[in-house]
Amino acid sequence: MNRIPFAEVQAALASVLCNLGFAPDRADTCARLFAETTRDGVYTHGINRFARFVVTIRNGRVIPDAEPEVTARLGAVERWDGHRGPGNLAALAAMERAIILGREHGVGCVALGNTNHWMRGGTYGWQAAEAGSIGICWTNTMPNLPPWGGAERVIGNNPLIIAVPRPGGPVVLDMAMSQFSYGALESYRKRGEMLPVDGGFDANGNLTRDPGAIEESWRPLPAGYWKGSGLAIVLDMIAAMMTLGHATCQIPSDPMLETGISQMFLALNPGAFGPVPEVEKIADAVVASLHNCPPPKPGGKVRYPGEQTRHIREENTRLGLPVEPEVWTEILAM
Amino acid sequence: MNRIPFAEVQAALASVLCNLGFAPDRADTCARLFAETTRDGVYTHGINRFARFVVTIRNGRVIPDAEPEVTARLGAVERWDGHRGPGNLAALAAMERAIILGREHGVGCVALGNTNHWMRGGTYGWQAAEAGSIGICWTNTMPNLPPWGGAERVIGNNPLIIAVPRPGGPVVLDMAMSQFSYGALESYRKRGEMLPVDGGFDANGNLTRDPGAIEESWRPLPAGYWKGSGLAIVLDMIAAMMTLGHATCQIPSDPMLETGISQMFLALNPGAFGPVPEVEKIADAVVASLHNCPPPKPGGKVRYPGEQTRHIREENTRLGLPVEPEVWTEILAM
Repeated sequence: MNRIPFAEVQAALASVLCNLGFAPDRADTCARLFAETTRDGVYTHGINRFARFVVTIRNGRVIPDAEPEVTARLGAVERWDGHRGPGNLAALAAMERAIILGREHGVGCVALGNTNHWMRGGTYGWQAAEAGSIGICWTNTMPNLPPWGGAERVIGNNPLIIAVPRPGGPVVLDMAMSQFSYGALESYRKRGEMLPVDGGFDANGNLTRDPGAIEESWRPLPAGYWKGSGLAIVLDMIAAMMTLGHATCQIPSDPMLETGISQMFLALNPGAFGPVPEVEKIADAVVASLHNCPPPKPGGKVRYPGEQTRHIREENTRLGLPVEPEVWTEILAM
Repeated sequence: MNRIPFAEVQAALASVLCNLGFAPDRADTCARLFAETTRDGVYTHGINRFARFVVTIRNGRVIPDAEPEVTARLGAVERWDGHRGPGNLAALAAMERAIILGREHGVGCVALGNTNHWMRGGTYGWQAAEAGSIGICWTNTMPNLPPWGGAERVIGNNPLIIAVPRPGGPVVLDMAMSQFSYGALESYRKRGEMLPVDGGFDANGNLTRDPGAIEESWRPLPAGYWKGSGLAIVLDMIAAMMTLGHATCQIPSDPMLETGISQMFLALNPGAFGPVPEVEKIADAVVASLHNCPPPKPGGKVRYPGEQTRHIREENTRLGLPVEPEVWTEILAM
């Protein structure tokens, strides 16, 4: 594993993007988001995902110079057309606007349709929380998950992000609606490990912890069985209805062809009613209650969502971003 | 099992509430919400829950004539103090106001603090969807669920409701953050059945489907393990921060003493940008994709959240509400 300084990674990715038709400032920002994702330890959606992103630029699914456009406004809500531009840039702009609307109106919402994969959803949660806002956002995806009671993939794993600002460090939940992603199943299988809990069905329709059996059946479990399935369904409906865009069932079911997806960005202003230092203490009280909870076995610890991110961020900033040599070689050759 | 006409149930409950100090119109509405909950098949939170509700009135936790008050406003958001009145009446008023704010601003939000248990959360989802709005609401609760990685109950099961209007019938997700409620565990145990999937830990810390073992360990599972645990944590933080009210860790941990809880009501206006018949078609397209999904075994069917409710509602309206004889006797004697 190489350790490459953040700035060097960002510059290398930006250089590739410039060659693909990105304006320099957009290349810089897009590259920064990929580098930050690896820096924060979400390795599946950072540098390791960059080559796939480049494929979708080259095959025309992601249009480098397309920028989102406001197509409708009412009070605290805007509808945007992403024009199939780079998904992370559009999502960053949408959350930025939702935060501003939230400051003005107490709550703000941007419904972004006709966009592309936003890569790490947590990015926009951290963005909101670091700006002092509560951020709630979600995306639909191509069909990649069987609903509860169904055998074929007709719903999306539709990641939901909920972020809470906190002086001692934001609390950021970033959860897809599948219990394990296909990437996670692959990682467990390659390490020869079983999943810690049931992750899907085997070919005989039995629940299993065997990652390979789930990859073969294409039947991973929704998180919480019927619960995650239901949540994926309603999140998809809302995103498509508010954007007047595509629902999961209308999105091409191939990762390289997936485009025209629908996303929602909500920002709540916890200081809507004037500066209240007590608000900041509330999240701390919840965190304290978690840290004081005894573990089932000595040595365990309850963590709040996103708690590990700051440690990983610090380490990867200090030591350099961990990059597989072959991934780095591939990027330098692009 | 008795079958009692809806109107007769409502009148009986309203009579009890009048005797406890409710004004007649408030008694009628409160009684209607209990009767509707049983009518819709949520038997744990309807008539069967009424005696417990009466206990919390008699012990002073629920103040019959307390009405919610707006304490702060900014644009599309209001902060309300529930003054510890009847939780279902306050929640109904809060969602009604959020719907109006949503019509004006595209999105509306009421943060209701210092309130009491809202009984069936789905009530306020149906309310929003039947008014043509997307409704999102949640409540915190007393500590009743161990977080992922912890052995003691320090988080709430914090039900989350997301409702989508649809001409062919609303889609209403009503999910608590535990995989099974204590009420569900009790029902399975009394029927001598195992749970369909793992529902918690036994005394040895192993995952189990045995409802009695989970009741003894007091360690039910969050839905989706770490995912439902994380979701419960952030929902609690947001509700407490926006209301400037209590987080789960500050709420008395006894069902009969639980009070001063925090709730959020959000309404999105899917017609914010003018009348768009296409919006209505989107939810139908998603429903069709679910109904067309083949089941793993012949005879199965994928259902959307709330799909069963309308059938149960029709049957219970036609035949009368199902009420255990001893429950009915107890109510008539109150």
